[in-house]
Amino acid sequence: MGTLWGGRYTEAPDELLWEFNASLRFDKRLAQVDVRGSIAYAKALGRAGILNEDEVHILLRGLEQIAREFSQGSFAFAPTDEDIHTAVERRLHELIGPVAGKLHTGRSRNDQVATDIRLYLLEVLDELAQSLRAVQSSIIAKAEEHLSVIMPGYTHLQPAQPVRFSHWLLSFFWMFQRDLERLQDLRKRTSLCPLGAGALAGNAYGIDREALARELGFTGVTENSMDAVSDRDMVLETLSWAAILGVHLSRLAEDLILWSSAEFGFVQLAERFTTGSSLMPQKRNPDSMELVRAKAGRLIGNLVQLLTVIKGLPSTYDKDLQEDKEPLFDTLDTLKMTLPITAQVIATLQVNQEAMQNALDEAMLATDLADYLVRKGIPFREAHHLVGQVVLLSEQKGLPLSKLPLEELQRISPAFGPDLYDTLHFEASVEARNVIGGTALSAVKKQLQRARMLLQGK
Amino acid sequence: MGTLWGGRYTEAPDELLWEFNASLRFDKRLAQVDVRGSIAYAKALGRAGILNEDEVHILLRGLEQIAREFSQGSFAFAPTDEDIHTAVERRLHELIGPVAGKLHTGRSRNDQVATDIRLYLLEVLDELAQSLRAVQSSIIAKAEEHLSVIMPGYTHLQPAQPVRFSHWLLSFFWMFQRDLERLQDLRKRTSLCPLGAGALAGNAYGIDREALARELGFTGVTENSMDAVSDRDMVLETLSWAAILGVHLSRLAEDLILWSSAEFGFVQLAERFTTGSSLMPQKRNPDSMELVRAKAGRLIGNLVQLLTVIKGLPSTYDKDLQEDKEPLFDTLDTLKMTLPITAQVIATLQVNQEAMQNALDEAMLATDLADYLVRKGIPFREAHHLVGQVVLLSEQKGLPLSKLPLEELQRISPAFGPDLYDTLHFEASVEARNVIGGTALSAVKKQLQRARMLLQGK
Amino acid sequence: MGTLWGGRYTEAPDELLWEFNASLRFDKRLAQVDVRGSIAYAKALGRAGILNEDEVHILLRGLEQIAREFSQGSFAFAPTDEDIHTAVERRLHELIGPVAGKLHTGRSRNDQVATDIRLYLLEVLDELAQSLRAVQSSIIAKAEEHLSVIMPGYTHLQPAQPVRFSHWLLSFFWMFQRDLERLQDLRKRTSLCPLGAGALAGNAYGIDREALARELGFTGVTENSMDAVSDRDMVLETLSWAAILGVHLSRLAEDLILWSSAEFGFVQLAERFTTGSSLMPQKRNPDSMELVRAKAGRLIGNLVQLLTVIKGLPSTYDKDLQEDKEPLFDTLDTLKMTLPITAQVIATLQVNQEAMQNALDEAMLATDLADYLVRKGIPFREAHHLVGQVVLLSEQKGLPLSKLPLEELQRISPAFGPDLYDTLHFEASVEARNVIGGTALSAVKKQLQRARMLLQGK
Amino acid sequence: MGTLWGGRYTEAPDELLWEFNASLRFDKRLAQVDVRGSIAYAKALGRAGILNEDEVHILLRGLEQIAREFSQGSFAFAPTDEDIHTAVERRLHELIGPVAGKLHTGRSRNDQVATDIRLYLLEVLDELAQSLRAVQSSIIAKAEEHLSVIMPGYTHLQPAQPVRFSHWLLSFFWMFQRDLERLQDLRKRTSLCPLGAGALAGNAYGIDREALARELGFTGVTENSMDAVSDRDMVLETLSWAAILGVHLSRLAEDLILWSSAEFGFVQLAERFTTGSSLMPQKRNPDSMELVRAKAGRLIGNLVQLLTVIKGLPSTYDKDLQEDKEPLFDTLDTLKMTLPITAQVIATLQVNQEAMQNALDEAMLATDLADYLVRKGIPFREAHHLVGQVVLLSEQKGLPLSKLPLEELQRISPAFGPDLYDTLHFEASVEARNVIGGTALSAVKKQLQRARMLLQGK
Repeated sequence: MGTLWGGRYTEAPDELLWEFNASLRFDKRLAQVDVRGSIAYAKALGRAGILNEDEVHILLRGLEQIAREFSQGSFAFAPTDEDIHTAVERRLHELIGPVAGKLHTGRSRNDQVATDIRLYLLEVLDELAQSLRAVQSSIIAKAEEHLSVIMPGYTHLQPAQPVRFSHWLLSFFWMFQRDLERLQDLRKRTSLCPLGAGALAGNAYGIDREALARELGFTGVTENSMDAVSDRDMVLETLSWAAILGVHLSRLAEDLILWSSAEFGFVQLAERFTTGSSLMPQKRNPDSMELVRAKAGRLIGNLVQLLTVIKGLPSTYDKDLQEDKEPLFDTLDTLKMTLPITAQVIATLQVNQEAMQNALDEAMLATDLADYLVRKGIPFREAHHLVGQVVLLSEQKGLPLSKLPLEELQRISPAFGPDLYDTLHFEASVEARNVIGGTALSAVKKQLQRARMLLQGK
Repeated sequence: MGTLWGGRYTEAPDELLWEFNASLRFDKRLAQVDVRGSIAYAKALGRAGILNEDEVHILLRGLEQIAREFSQGSFAFAPTDEDIHTAVERRLHELIGPVAGKLHTGRSRNDQVATDIRLYLLEVLDELAQSLRAVQSSIIAKAEEHLSVIMPGYTHLQPAQPVRFSHWLLSFFWMFQRDLERLQDLRKRTSLCPLGAGALAGNAYGIDREALARELGFTGVTENSMDAVSDRDMVLETLSWAAILGVHLSRLAEDLILWSSAEFGFVQLAERFTTGSSLMPQKRNPDSMELVRAKAGRLIGNLVQLLTVIKGLPSTYDKDLQEDKEPLFDTLDTLKMTLPITAQVIATLQVNQEAMQNALDEAMLATDLADYLVRKGIPFREAHHLVGQVVLLSEQKGLPLSKLPLEELQRISPAFGPDLYDTLHFEASVEARNVIGGTALSAVKKQLQRARMLLQGK
Repeated sequence: MGTLWGGRYTEAPDELLWEFNASLRFDKRLAQVDVRGSIAYAKALGRAGILNEDEVHILLRGLEQIAREFSQGSFAFAPTDEDIHTAVERRLHELIGPVAGKLHTGRSRNDQVATDIRLYLLEVLDELAQSLRAVQSSIIAKAEEHLSVIMPGYTHLQPAQPVRFSHWLLSFFWMFQRDLERLQDLRKRTSLCPLGAGALAGNAYGIDREALARELGFTGVTENSMDAVSDRDMVLETLSWAAILGVHLSRLAEDLILWSSAEFGFVQLAERFTTGSSLMPQKRNPDSMELVRAKAGRLIGNLVQLLTVIKGLPSTYDKDLQEDKEPLFDTLDTLKMTLPITAQVIATLQVNQEAMQNALDEAMLATDLADYLVRKGIPFREAHHLVGQVVLLSEQKGLPLSKLPLEELQRISPAFGPDLYDTLHFEASVEARNVIGGTALSAVKKQLQRARMLLQGK
Repeated sequence: MGTLWGGRYTEAPDELLWEFNASLRFDKRLAQVDVRGSIAYAKALGRAGILNEDEVHILLRGLEQIAREFSQGSFAFAPTDEDIHTAVERRLHELIGPVAGKLHTGRSRNDQVATDIRLYLLEVLDELAQSLRAVQSSIIAKAEEHLSVIMPGYTHLQPAQPVRFSHWLLSFFWMFQRDLERLQDLRKRTSLCPLGAGALAGNAYGIDREALARELGFTGVTENSMDAVSDRDMVLETLSWAAILGVHLSRLAEDLILWSSAEFGFVQLAERFTTGSSLMPQKRNPDSMELVRAKAGRLIGNLVQLLTVIKGLPSTYDKDLQEDKEPLFDTLDTLKMTLPITAQVIATLQVNQEAMQNALDEAMLATDLADYLVRKGIPFREAHHLVGQVVLLSEQKGLPLSKLPLEELQRISPAFGPDLYDTLHFEASVEARNVIGGTALSAVKKQLQRARMLLQGK
């Protein structure tokens, strides 16, 4: 049967071009959605009176057979199959004869592939939403377990103020929550059916596009045929979404890599999420998290690739758009693996409370000391400056804040009284921050509650 | 007064570091929102009982004076102003004395700048939404004007099927409509108030964060202080959004550049949106559209910059995040200029109907001829193949399809009858595609109506 | 045998992690160079007295057998093979028993894989240099064929000045020449042997690294073991090089796509480098060139991926570096296909001299008219302005420049005399530009000569 | 005087377009090189007999006056100055009258700006080479100072093997050395003069391009006028070079940030290269290094921007190319500041030898223990496995390797003898690796010597 387009041709395509041009290698994963689209289209042609009932019946029988062959892995591709659409049509012809040639009536590969991508994407997005929720779920569980653990909070990787371990971990819940919301938003825009847009100008056979869209589970139809065949916004938006999600994952990975270093020692990855060295017998490397961190680069690269491909293209379909699939599939596959790994690494993470406690240094209570002075009526900016001098004194003397004698402190500010030592407790510090989103136990518990409700879709 | 953080320091910062570190050069545009945030924060400290009524009153008086100075352009920056926050606090101290030092109570530059960015972004996003609607509006107006103009539709930049000029132009309406929807989606996530997150651990002064958020016009508050100070998702999402929008604009620009070439000649840009050559006296170059096309590169570059900066950062605030502002501002400024230019280029575009008509070639009706055979009962795939041979014949004979003698056509397929010539009209071809989103006049009119309703926010 | 690193482990790696971590899927293409490196390393251990002659002999026998198995495609991978290095070591053990365990003495996968990448890259770079020269060669041949063809030269895609077709085509020769030079430059930096750097600290067995480098065909050794195991500059530089080359190819593709449009019609791609449409029987699309254009996006994306992965990594080897291979291989594979396609498309290109001639418009001679006035003593800037008025007149009258009556021209400038019409010839225009790199026949011939010499490596 | 191109125009450019199009804002930094190029071009026109001696003299006088005005900061730009070329030509006209109009004879802004960019770039590249050498010089000095300091070497941020601090620091010397070599390579390709290429077709006035190139200090001329006006490879190559250099700097920054954390504590940045917090009085943040790390994102973004802009452009000059300057200038400015900061941070770095010593853990000698077994005749792979068990034992017992009783070790392998304890010294470990590029003192000294020679250009 050869190509779908050879009628006016006098020469066969160059072999190198054939290989360059063929997309079967990567678009075969669209097999099932392609058949699903064809089944719906056959019915639509029937409803429009273009095919009679028998023809529709024969087509459906053939297509369902092909779907089974794909499910069972028994579908045999031919070397002449240019892409998944050609492969299906070729097989259909083998199975049901010339009626197969009626399926493409008024349909172009341009609207067909646009439909396939959307159907496929909708499926995978739902799967990824589940995986993302599983990560959130492991965060909530681990946070609940360690509510009382206090650890150093850092800014600029320098000790800043004490925080709860759970509060730190939950900070990632909210990143992933935004990722989930973005996912829902882009899903809306993906769920529009382009079938019936033809090559670029629409369908001349009066098919009912809205019925067709409903049949395929879309929530609506695209509104302009020229836009419909070249719109890859849902892919670009998915790649952007994934890049931002990847950046979130890379930050979590970075924290876990740092904290499982010998020097921090705050957490330990489960042995089965680490690997060793071929040379150094003692090594236990956090490869899982290093790869998660690195995957952000891949996700960003895929986004750049497609933005660059589409930039400046003349409108409607250009062959350049065929380059949309590989970055999309690579991004989806990357997340399919990265998210479950992340969920399990969190779930199996060992938290070393003692190391965290040992890392708490009283200099991290300097802000609390400034707050103390503020309560004594000193403007914050001045209090900050005075406490700066206290810290310098503490460094010079090599003494923690709580060991500095009162008279020395009073030389810096007479406002210091003996009650100042009461503020120099890590627990007091985290409890003092009891606004929404703060580190106090009550605040973190409310945060957890809101997180749990969101996870349950409330 | 010096820096806001010098208390414990014994050395002044290195001059080179000062310049490297200082952000005033670019963050001064946050002046008004910074003051707005400080006014709300002063009130919140008052409501929480941290400041008394007099202090609040004095602070507000000072801050309002500063706001006026910014409006009037009379605010004088000092060489020691590290950033806009320092500049405002320094000036406040000059105006109202030591009470100024109370404004920062419990607030860090980390939550302050996060609030500023969001307030600023919300303003500009609304402005850009207006500009985007203006582009859509110019599309609708121009499309209505030229409903009857038929032109070649291209795929792969090769003549494909005839379409209406209005249909082509409206294809961009839908791209921009998706951009608008994405803008609304990201606006939701931007409209959350981080103030009260402190440096990373929350606020120890019991301020009412929800009231504070309402005061500033936010729709809610952020839920985790550690996330709040380092969340730049709203920036990343804006940059992604802008990159996709930029790609849409680049495609429109590409079409207009191609079509205003001597060889196409379909449109002419208004003279005042072109420029000439310093060497070649005859030139009239579409510089406006070339720059619009190129801006996509800049928008993509800005996105890559920030994704790369944030990837792999340890959690909470790192100084790296200061690099968020320049790409954000550059992207917003680029769109502020690109969108109005685009709207005006469309509004003033001359459409050369005659050139479009001349470019219509009967080979573009080959699909209609195949449709003719389908109606005679021939499966589409076979019809496609037969018409391919007709096209080849037409090329070999150097005759348009409608001039090929019937007997020769019948040699290719006996299904051809004398009525075939009726299908070989461009008007008939566009009218045949009358499904939703198709090229028929009725379909394009419905499309226009939906577009108009969406533009009016219905 | 399991992993190479399991001694201290009590748990097996998680299955998901195993899949996430394993690199065999893509690094198996390093098989031959990996064996080559091992053969040289075995000899080096022999020379250093670490292995005796027999052991070296046995190892070489085993490794050569493995090399044969790879050549013949008979090598059987095991499900437990984590990467190509593990696979080879596992097979070696099967073939020669415990002596296999001596091969890794003092070697780490870190220096091993760094060596493999460089060996592989050197091979492929040489192959790509050949392909690039083949593109240049097809340019020279085609340029020689059409030396006398004059066509419109464009700036801003607007007709600018007449040029020779050969001159246009040769402009790409120089882009590719720079690409070739860059290739030679990066080759130098690739040709340094890291073997002996161990995991990060060097080799404790006194092997002669310089002899080892010579044995493997490197020109030198790396100078610091910590740098050596994590240096991926040769990959980054290759990806940069490829991105720039890809941009050049995309510009050539763009020109050919535009010029094979119906409206330009200047060239025609050989039928076998075009494809048709599944819906529209008349189509002949320049898919080959559209894909070449799009590949630039992929090459840029790959570069961004790796830059982003490596940015901010702690020094020496991190697992993130494993993500270097896929973008590298994808880039190399892309060029391996794109360059030969391009060479053949050029070689088989049909040049439509008549269409080019028809597109020459006398307005393109405006600069020549200005030059005429300059020769009459009028400053160029004024001449440019006067000719601008002449062009306007010609447009308003609808007459070509050569048909404007002398008296009307003299009303614009009395300097115009009857000899002005002599300058209004396209041939005269291209011949006037006879400096190095200009359009005159003598200049283009000299250019061709230089190009030919460079291609021959002179 | 208005624009340089207005002759045929009947309308003034739109104000918005004017602003969109004007490049003076950023190209004014090309002022001096633009004047330099014009001086050389005036002389070339004189040599070619196009201008007489007097005219050349007058032009030079005017241009030199303008150069002085730029030097003194007294040059007054006019609101109608579109770009730096227009500004200079406008001022020249004011200074010397109509002769000014002769300067542009046969020159276009296309070849003019291409020349300006190259001249400017050559200057800045030389300046950056100096800055890069200064970084290398500070590395060498600091490495020499601390030759005897041994510290943990990491892979995967897990303790791997002991290394010398100097060896670690020198690893960056070699990265920067490659950057310097790449800089020299790209300099060659930048040093070609495009002047005489005109708008695209060459120069019709017979100027001697080679003499012109020599006059301007170029080493050669460009070979094809169409390539010359749109070649931006030197910019792309500079941006690639800078991105790779930026990645190197980011890795150094990452190490220094990690090592100046409280938990590592290996180094301390000089106080004047850190900054404090507006809220937390105790903070001393490594802002300088955080910004250096972040700058890599900016450098990568600039590269992506320009690659994307140029990808797929039709050949010769398109206005899109005007977008080359801002990313180029931003990249150059970024490096002009980043490199000196880095040099000074290294020069003033405090090295905390004690903290490094404390962080040395005997598990890092596991490889040495395996080497011990190898010397007893056990194949390395088996030795690795056995030592893995030793490490596990040490962890389970909570004892360092050197405290494990011999009998227990002999239960793991009878090959262990009492001399094994001799290998368990950090000094012994680094000294054992005495090949080129290894950690032994002699090897590091040789490395230093090679580095010093390269720095001196030998």
